[in-house]
Amino acid sequence: MKIAVLPGDGIGPEIIAQAQRVLEVLRSDGLPIEMERAPLGGAAYDEFGHPYPSFTQNLCRDADAVLLGAVGGPQYDNLERALRPERGLLAIRKDLNLFANLRPAILYPELANASTLKPEVVSGLDIMIVRELTGDIYFGQPRGIAVNELGEREAYNTMRYSEGEIRRIAHVAFGIAMKRNKKLCSVDKANVLETTEFWKEIMIDVAREYPQVELSHMYVDNAAMQLVRNPKQFDVMVTGNIFGDILSDEASMLTGSIGMLPSASLDQNNKGLYEPSHGSAPDIAGKDLANPLATILSAAMMLRYTFNQEAAAQRVENAVKTVLAQGYRTADIFEAGCEKVSCSGMGDAVVAAL
Amino acid sequence: MKIAVLPGDGIGPEIIAQAQRVLEVLRSDGLPIEMERAPLGGAAYDEFGHPYPSFTQNLCRDADAVLLGAVGGPQYDNLERALRPERGLLAIRKDLNLFANLRPAILYPELANASTLKPEVVSGLDIMIVRELTGDIYFGQPRGIAVNELGEREAYNTMRYSEGEIRRIAHVAFGIAMKRNKKLCSVDKANVLETTEFWKEIMIDVAREYPQVELSHMYVDNAAMQLVRNPKQFDVMVTGNIFGDILSDEASMLTGSIGMLPSASLDQNNKGLYEPSHGSAPDIAGKDLANPLATILSAAMMLRYTFNQEAAAQRVENAVKTVLAQGYRTADIFEAGCEKVSCSGMGDAVVAAL
Ligand SMILES: CC(C)[C@H](C(=O)O)[C@@H](O)C(=O)O
Ligand SMILES: CC(C)[C@H](C(=O)O)[C@@H](O)C(=O)O
Repeated sequence: MKIAVLPGDGIGPEIIAQAQRVLEVLRSDGLPIEMERAPLGGAAYDEFGHPYPSFTQNLCRDADAVLLGAVGGPQYDNLERALRPERGLLAIRKDLNLFANLRPAILYPELANASTLKPEVVSGLDIMIVRELTGDIYFGQPRGIAVNELGEREAYNTMRYSEGEIRRIAHVAFGIAMKRNKKLCSVDKANVLETTEFWKEIMIDVAREYPQVELSHMYVDNAAMQLVRNPKQFDVMVTGNIFGDILSDEASMLTGSIGMLPSASLDQNNKGLYEPSHGSAPDIAGKDLANPLATILSAAMMLRYTFNQEAAAQRVENAVKTVLAQGYRTADIFEAGCEKVSCSGMGDAVVAAL
Repeated sequence: MKIAVLPGDGIGPEIIAQAQRVLEVLRSDGLPIEMERAPLGGAAYDEFGHPYPSFTQNLCRDADAVLLGAVGGPQYDNLERALRPERGLLAIRKDLNLFANLRPAILYPELANASTLKPEVVSGLDIMIVRELTGDIYFGQPRGIAVNELGEREAYNTMRYSEGEIRRIAHVAFGIAMKRNKKLCSVDKANVLETTEFWKEIMIDVAREYPQVELSHMYVDNAAMQLVRNPKQFDVMVTGNIFGDILSDEASMLTGSIGMLPSASLDQNNKGLYEPSHGSAPDIAGKDLANPLATILSAAMMLRYTFNQEAAAQRVENAVKTVLAQGYRTADIFEAGCEKVSCSGMGDAVVAAL
């Protein structure tokens, strides 16, 4: 189990350290885990002059899985586009062909108060968003800023999906729906965009191979509404890269505690990159204040999806449930009556619960 | 004041009838209002074989303003793309050059319970979303579904903005911010899309002409989150067509009562199309159950933006506030202790309050 560990920027190193402690416990209990570190994003720019340098690339290509903290920080805002931290993230996704981004939005009962939504609307929320991650307008050509025939400056990007790209993400989504409640909602804007009309057509075609799954379709604007109106109507959602970017962030915020939400980005063979859904939080970096649970839960997803170690994954997830039940809270999820702990303090609690 | 009235489909005719009654009251009190009707969407397809036939086009081009109910219905779902009701809507927007879509998301204090968000998060909510409506990936060329060089089918659309298109919507947004709290948030995805990097650059440039307005920038995924986390941080938001489609629907649902929300779509000279933010609700069409208030409030926006009749606009808005205070509620906003009224019953109440 070769894991490339990329702490990244901001709070990345702190939260990664706690996830590594968790993996070390599992190793000492017998899992053949090997971890090696490399920089990504701003940290990689600082060390190698590039957000995804070949040192990191080689390590990640060679590994079975990648565990990432987070990238980005204000000190990199004025770098030229190609050198900015998020370019490292986009580059590693494309380089490793990580086309399937899984983003759960789960409300932990102990943290129900953190949501801005009424308890009855979100209690028990458990949505899995499957976002296509290596196609769409993120990578489509042509793109750029240029002077048009009329002598006016204009800018353009291309939303683009091939049949094969849609088919493979459809299979991932239907596969996940089969393991859950057999309900899949595909989100498109088929009334306006040919690309998503095509997306819908392929989804319907792939659905014939999964007769047990109930497939529905929803326009992206309506989905953005329905996530607010009645999010529990959803189980698994599948959509393209840009709509998935927007909807998965909206969905995760419904829980009020994005410090708890992991994510996985998988290739065809379940090699994956695992990272918390939240960002690098430069404002609290280095202060031992960050919530490491999303990163620890990302490690659990890694055990499940890449290494097929369901028991170990559940062991980690149960340890997280235990520390919540014990009342330990980092600052982002703190409420009166609980015990406030630091990032490393939360790591201590999880290791103890393991 | 020549108004083209387009009832459209579904509940369109019912809600338009009530808005017309309101305008008739104003006419009898002296406003020189003339109204003529034409079909749009499915109704136009039924009558003329096209969702935006030349009969309707001529009337609308000739009018000073257009009042629209809503378009769409399941009986039109299997029509070929070019004939579907929403094509009529896209066509009229483009034909009349209605590039500035104004979508308020206002929470009426009497309806605070309707929101799925906690009262303290949404009470007093009053956001104005300015959405560019005739450019972006909605209209960008090239677009289509085709076989690529590798012999595989693929589909594509083009996100595209010229400098002029961005400048003119920026001026509308800054103008509105000047009349409100002088805070404008421009939403982009400048970290990934050149089109929105260009958008941001032009926004910053136009901002120099409005030194009193505080301009901020937010990525679209973060905006989708922040609308859930703390919507009251926003006053005026400006964004492109597709992001605006998604975010304005999300924002309107924060209020829990989209039956209350009007919209305006304006050209360079404040000619405008006015319509409720909600859809054609085919399930309750013809039952005299729909909420006509969003359409009535759309007529108020028409008085304000196209006809510069601020007093008349406020008179209509105050009548709506009065009927809410009196406890009249259509089914969509009904709660115990209030008086449930039909669509026409609500129209009666507003006319009485006027
Ligand atoms: C940082 C950015 C490029 C990235 C994206 O848009 O994919 C982020 O928002 C995400 O969702 O992982
Ligand atoms: C019906 C559809 C074409 C339209 C749009 O996407 O603009 C609608 O969602 C809207 O927001 O008015």
